[in-house]
Amino acid sequence: MTYCLGIRLNSGIVFASDSRTNAGVDNISTYRKLFVFETPGERVICVLTAGNLAVTQAVISQLEEGLDGDTDGDTLYNVSSLTNAAQLVGRAIRNVHDRDQKYIEAEDGSASSTFILGGQIKGRRMRLFQIYSAGNYIEATEDTPYIQIGESKYGKPILERVVTPEMELLQAAKCALVSIDSTVRSNVAVALPIDMMVMNVDECKVAMQQRIQPEDPYYLQISKEWGEGLGKLFNDLPAPAWFDETS
Amino acid sequence: MTYCLGIRLNSGIVFASDSRTNAGVDNISTYRKLFVFETPGERVICVLTAGNLAVTQAVISQLEEGLDGDTDGDTLYNVSSLTNAAQLVGRAIRNVHDRDQKYIEAEDGSASSTFILGGQIKGRRMRLFQIYSAGNYIEATEDTPYIQIGESKYGKPILERVVTPEMELLQAAKCALVSIDSTVRSNVAVALPIDMMVMNVDECKVAMQQRIQPEDPYYLQISKEWGEGLGKLFNDLPAPAWFDETS
Repeated sequence: MTYCLGIRLNSGIVFASDSRTNAGVDNISTYRKLFVFETPGERVICVLTAGNLAVTQAVISQLEEGLDGDTDGDTLYNVSSLTNAAQLVGRAIRNVHDRDQKYIEAEDGSASSTFILGGQIKGRRMRLFQIYSAGNYIEATEDTPYIQIGESKYGKPILERVVTPEMELLQAAKCALVSIDSTVRSNVAVALPIDMMVMNVDECKVAMQQRIQPEDPYYLQISKEWGEGLGKLFNDLPAPAWFDETS
Repeated sequence: MTYCLGIRLNSGIVFASDSRTNAGVDNISTYRKLFVFETPGERVICVLTAGNLAVTQAVISQLEEGLDGDTDGDTLYNVSSLTNAAQLVGRAIRNVHDRDQKYIEAEDGSASSTFILGGQIKGRRMRLFQIYSAGNYIEATEDTPYIQIGESKYGKPILERVVTPEMELLQAAKCALVSIDSTVRSNVAVALPIDMMVMNVDECKVAMQQRIQPEDPYYLQISKEWGEGLGKLFNDLPAPAWFDETS
């Protein structure tokens, strides 16, 4: 399993991912799922991956080096727009599927994979996309300014309640950590370390990128305060007055 | 979709379910999914249902009137133990599957259904079971004293954080409402009214049963206080000190 999310604010984008992969519960590993393609000041593009690891690694490789069998030489370092970048991911997925899908499915595996892609190229708009396993894509909007892939349900309620395009970047980064923490607690197939990247609008470069380890003091602090706060909030809610338990 | 849960405490059991059914988003209805089989003082058994509505209705009918083609005359009103009750549900599911499953699947439908069954028969232990579509079952334990069926993910974190066997019944009823409220907010296929039943240990009868409508004042109050409290709790968490946003 996997949990990745991107939150597009007016002031920038926050990207975050867990790093656990598993081929059955007896085969668990740590793999990076957050990839940055940057020419500082000219472009910054971040790609997050979920799904079949062989497929996503083959896609990332083609995004860096150019599509297999393609003489155009398109990579995420030279595409002219974010839309073209999303389409390039779609073409790379289809390329890998054409080559591998029937063999994967013959072994009862799934070749399914999904991607988040966001960023900005100088002189163009900052954008955030979700690319499906079929290679088509949707864009985050004002109404729903975040995109999740993988195990999205446990971490969605906090996003729905607090994320707006006007939110500050660091508040959104905090929200991403709370969202991942909620997921980690309920699904052992999602786990730290967390990879995170934050970019400011119109800078076309990484503002902050780091790997947050399980013993990270800030992560431990918000995980503890959030958990204790939820317990207190629940206790403070009035109990129903439906019947007398002592009767 | 559906969301039902049962919470087994030392002092009793809380059962709760939503009441939305949907055959596509253009075909939404309200159906009861919580059924009580009671001979006050002698037995109280509650069954909650999720999955194919035709299957679950056929199962409930057989639990009331006896299995089709079965001359034993077993119903939930005369089985001698809760284990036998769980097995009766399993036999009823298999009975319906034997008759209908291949025809449902020929129409690309799913005959899958799951059940929660809990209660107590005089002189025996109070128990809570989950019965799978295959007709086999598991029992709630001290370690995991609750059982969920249907859309379980959105409402699971609050259960994990606060439910213990020592919890008071009315606190658990409050917890069930918060859990359903979180689910209703994130999945339109889960909706009010909520059916709820509470039983005290060793009474072998219903202590409280009611249908909670969307305009119920207590439900509205805890939904509002929980939502506002989460927002405040999030805002009160410290922001990360990773970089200066104004730089």
